[in-house]
Amino acid sequence: MKLVRYGNPGKEKPGLIDAEGRLRDLSAVVPDIGPGQLGDAALAKLRKLKADKLPLVRGKPRFGAPVAGIGKFIAIGLNYSDHAAETGSPIPKEPIVFMKATSCIQGANDPVMLPKGSVKSDWEVELGVVIGTRARYVSQKAALDHVAGYCVVNDVSEREFQLERGPQWDKGKGCDTFGPIGPWLVTRDEVENPQKLKLWLDLNGRRVQDGSTKTMIFGVAKLVSYVSQFMTLEPGDVITTGTPPGVGLGMKPPVFLKKGDVMTLGIEGLGEQRQLVVPFKL
Amino acid sequence: MKLVRYGNPGKEKPGLIDAEGRLRDLSAVVPDIGPGQLGDAALAKLRKLKADKLPLVRGKPRFGAPVAGIGKFIAIGLNYSDHAAETGSPIPKEPIVFMKATSCIQGANDPVMLPKGSVKSDWEVELGVVIGTRARYVSQKAALDHVAGYCVVNDVSEREFQLERGPQWDKGKGCDTFGPIGPWLVTRDEVENPQKLKLWLDLNGRRVQDGSTKTMIFGVAKLVSYVSQFMTLEPGDVITTGTPPGVGLGMKPPVFLKKGDVMTLGIEGLGEQRQLVVPFKL
Repeated sequence: MKLVRYGNPGKEKPGLIDAEGRLRDLSAVVPDIGPGQLGDAALAKLRKLKADKLPLVRGKPRFGAPVAGIGKFIAIGLNYSDHAAETGSPIPKEPIVFMKATSCIQGANDPVMLPKGSVKSDWEVELGVVIGTRARYVSQKAALDHVAGYCVVNDVSEREFQLERGPQWDKGKGCDTFGPIGPWLVTRDEVENPQKLKLWLDLNGRRVQDGSTKTMIFGVAKLVSYVSQFMTLEPGDVITTGTPPGVGLGMKPPVFLKKGDVMTLGIEGLGEQRQLVVPFKL
Repeated sequence: MKLVRYGNPGKEKPGLIDAEGRLRDLSAVVPDIGPGQLGDAALAKLRKLKADKLPLVRGKPRFGAPVAGIGKFIAIGLNYSDHAAETGSPIPKEPIVFMKATSCIQGANDPVMLPKGSVKSDWEVELGVVIGTRARYVSQKAALDHVAGYCVVNDVSEREFQLERGPQWDKGKGCDTFGPIGPWLVTRDEVENPQKLKLWLDLNGRRVQDGSTKTMIFGVAKLVSYVSQFMTLEPGDVITTGTPPGVGLGMKPPVFLKKGDVMTLGIEGLGEQRQLVVPFKL
């Protein structure tokens, strides 16, 4: 299933994308797509619905983040060996864990705003993992059973805030609009192998990131199990799993986002995002 | 006002502590103490209540965290000059910002659990700042107007997870039970000067931290203003502002928490916490 939340910011309604790619409304079935709708039983109930009986939604509404009430937005650093290399960093011995402020979360195609004074804002296409059931000290073998599904994340990052004004990265990772998620939450039954997904990002139509989740250092099952050793993962938590090579920081000379730039990005089977870069505005 | 949430975990009711130190129930007045009750107008309404007309609560109920729905639990590192010195770190040029997982939040007197395999769990008494109204690029001068009030926080930390398995600290800061908050949210009108508060922590009855917020490197107004340059602060967000000297890591040789230890800690005017240290348990 491809679950979505559509409509204006703060007023999103639940929906699903049917086999023909049309948007169907789920408002009469569930109040939202949030922690209460992500467990196996709740998803099985939705899966039993006959999509062609659900109301069709006309027009081209905005998509919000496909999950409401994300409690934790956890991120993994330097998780592709070739991305670690391009940033001049050693291969991590174990996952690097940091956090994006939940206030940065927005829809897949909402504009990305450069923070005041930003000169080093950068892009990172990433595979997002949405937790479906509570995970606490789970084994790698059991880890994927706790996953509701997957989504595209752009882990937008301000490199000066992150690296030169650190040493902790969170300052450059959670600026407002730095967390586009979606457009869809694709349930895990539709993702045969999360370690075999192409992912890419185009800047102004030029391909800059072109990778595959098969070159992750630590795979999804390992990451869910690992993070669950340090904190309880709750339904609706999102883990974004690191980016393949091709970020602006790694270019020679480095390239950073400027007003008017357009990022388009996607992951095989999980949909695409498009963000216009806009200047700082209160 | 001293606002509280009392009762069993997940079933807390709103209350206040009256002038005689007695607990009064606020259930008939507000649904909870959460983001919707923290703005100036909402607090003014509560302040107008005649406390002696509110129902007295009998017995000694548990206190939960005094704020529900904390969206972000933001923490400041090395913010007391003498604490920076004891950890062998230079004085930061600007605030170090990291995050504690919101899933670590608990009541002031709930037991603190050593994570599986932990050998370096440590204490940190800190002044917590609760945001009352949205703050985004606010000036230092206007910053305190966005504060609902103050509370005691124990920023419990696992030093091996934080420092030896880093480089990002979040891994050792957000373990379950690592975020006791409260017992009270003391509204800002009752805190004449947040930079003139004594704070202390006793381990098994022996004073190990004994400081004052006057030795903070960056004061509360600066911190609220500063963090609001990197992310929007929402009502209910908590910033915990760093710890004075006396943590276990700084002792020679270092001392860490073990099963059966008792931490008692407090801040002048903001109440006291007491936590028994318990072993890992699923």
